[in-house]
Amino acid sequence: MSLIYVLDILGTFAFAISGALVASDKKFDLFGVLIIAFVTAVGGGMLRDVLINAHPINWIGDLNYLFVIFTAVVFTFLFKSKIAHLSKTMFLFDTVGISVFTLLGLEKGLSYDLHPIIALIMGMISAVFGGVLRDVLTNKIPLIFQKEIYASACLAGGITYLILNHFHIPENIIFIISASIIIIIRVIAVKFELELPKIKDDLFTKK
Amino acid sequence: MSLIYVLDILGTFAFAISGALVASDKKFDLFGVLIIAFVTAVGGGMLRDVLINAHPINWIGDLNYLFVIFTAVVFTFLFKSKIAHLSKTMFLFDTVGISVFTLLGLEKGLSYDLHPIIALIMGMISAVFGGVLRDVLTNKIPLIFQKEIYASACLAGGITYLILNHFHIPENIIFIISASIIIIIRVIAVKFELELPKIKDDLFTKK
Amino acid sequence: MSLIYVLDILGTFAFAISGALVASDKKFDLFGVLIIAFVTAVGGGMLRDVLINAHPINWIGDLNYLFVIFTAVVFTFLFKSKIAHLSKTMFLFDTVGISVFTLLGLEKGLSYDLHPIIALIMGMISAVFGGVLRDVLTNKIPLIFQKEIYASACLAGGITYLILNHFHIPENIIFIISASIIIIIRVIAVKFELELPKIKDDLFTKK
Repeated sequence: MSLIYVLDILGTFAFAISGALVASDKKFDLFGVLIIAFVTAVGGGMLRDVLINAHPINWIGDLNYLFVIFTAVVFTFLFKSKIAHLSKTMFLFDTVGISVFTLLGLEKGLSYDLHPIIALIMGMISAVFGGVLRDVLTNKIPLIFQKEIYASACLAGGITYLILNHFHIPENIIFIISASIIIIIRVIAVKFELELPKIKDDLFTKK
Repeated sequence: MSLIYVLDILGTFAFAISGALVASDKKFDLFGVLIIAFVTAVGGGMLRDVLINAHPINWIGDLNYLFVIFTAVVFTFLFKSKIAHLSKTMFLFDTVGISVFTLLGLEKGLSYDLHPIIALIMGMISAVFGGVLRDVLTNKIPLIFQKEIYASACLAGGITYLILNHFHIPENIIFIISASIIIIIRVIAVKFELELPKIKDDLFTKK
Repeated sequence: MSLIYVLDILGTFAFAISGALVASDKKFDLFGVLIIAFVTAVGGGMLRDVLINAHPINWIGDLNYLFVIFTAVVFTFLFKSKIAHLSKTMFLFDTVGISVFTLLGLEKGLSYDLHPIIALIMGMISAVFGGVLRDVLTNKIPLIFQKEIYASACLAGGITYLILNHFHIPENIIFIISASIIIIIRVIAVKFELELPKIKDDLFTKK
């Protein structure tokens, strides 16, 4: 559990930096950068907790999220020009983040006795909605709707978790396997620029 | 009640298709289309339930919504080029959808002992907010704020419901009359391209 | 408390007019104007109450908000061309509004036994989020992220409140001092066009 918490914090840090970078590109002031970093980092878990009525919600119940986000914004202010060189590190943190967010969200859903499908959706909301909020607030169409296999990776990892969970495998092992699947799919997808199909043609399109 | 549930499902199906069509026009991938179909179909009821603290919220408490939305997205993928020819059928489903959503939302508000005005607003949120979310997430100004008498139809139907309810008329009859009013107003408004007034001139404008 | 309630209502009125003006500039119809006025005026308190699980939420628990917003919209319809001449009055109402919203939100947070930092954030959400929603729904990048020292004024006033509260000074006096700080900072900031720093340069930028 302690390791997972560390990974959760690392993911929060990476998400906050991703938000801060987008906001600073948009010429937001310090306050705007803080807000965007904040919603990117905790927006997914916040929506999940509101929807399943889990109070206190994530960042209200644990002040560490706020401290991590604040640190990430200060870090971005100080080292913005260097972060470009850290893009691989950031991508790693970010990918670890979405895998941990997905599985923690799913577990929280199950612990609230939700149907596994609903719990799976809660996992995906946890991982994905922060980025959606970031994009809506900066007036862009959410990236996730158009590109990156991001969400599919979360889905695959979540389904793996549920299947393994069904066979009563120890939780730690389930967590590691499922997280690895999310990370591997995402890395492969980004490396080979995989995309999901779009609705262009249908059964009646003449080829 | 069973008939109303069928209409609710039909409306959900129509809303999901409307969302899927907008998302596929924006070149969203499969995941993006699913999300937009989802928020369009259940976004209104979801917001209503969060605001009035009705847990489990709509789609968490009844998995059928998810199945209907999923079916609608598959249907859109397969038959996109044909749906244009079905536009009258879709408009009918959609119009039935908003009337049922409005009245079910209003009834839910009343069953939570809310003031009738608040319950009326809950009915309108149920009918309208899904489309607003769809438009915000696809980076458009929500259609409903600019055109179509849509919301006014819901309002008129909701007020009818409250008035008839005051006179203790049987619920089924109230439901049918109020739903008919919403449907009729919407059909007439679309047919004759009626619009609500805008704030252009005021008392001091010289004519 | 009664005076604070009057100021809360005045602030709600000013926020609703600010929303109605933005919406009418965007050529929204009457319904659209009402919605934007509504979310601008009560959106902040609504989000706060949902996040801290304070049901019934603000406008559900007190119908006066709805009446005030409705009045503000009618007022805007009738006197739109005159409101420009009232811009100083409106700015005053608006500034009083954010100071009262900030402090009432903070107090509500404390009364729910939240950590002072969380309560401070709740105060800022109360004051700021209505305008953010207004801008998102009219498809603009929220003003507050880019300009005006608005949020910093709320922050300074909120921190003042918490410090004075620590020394057990009577609540009325705390409220007056903290509100004055918010109002003074905002007025000075607008007068001298102060802005917060942006992330442009960092420690490694060569000058």
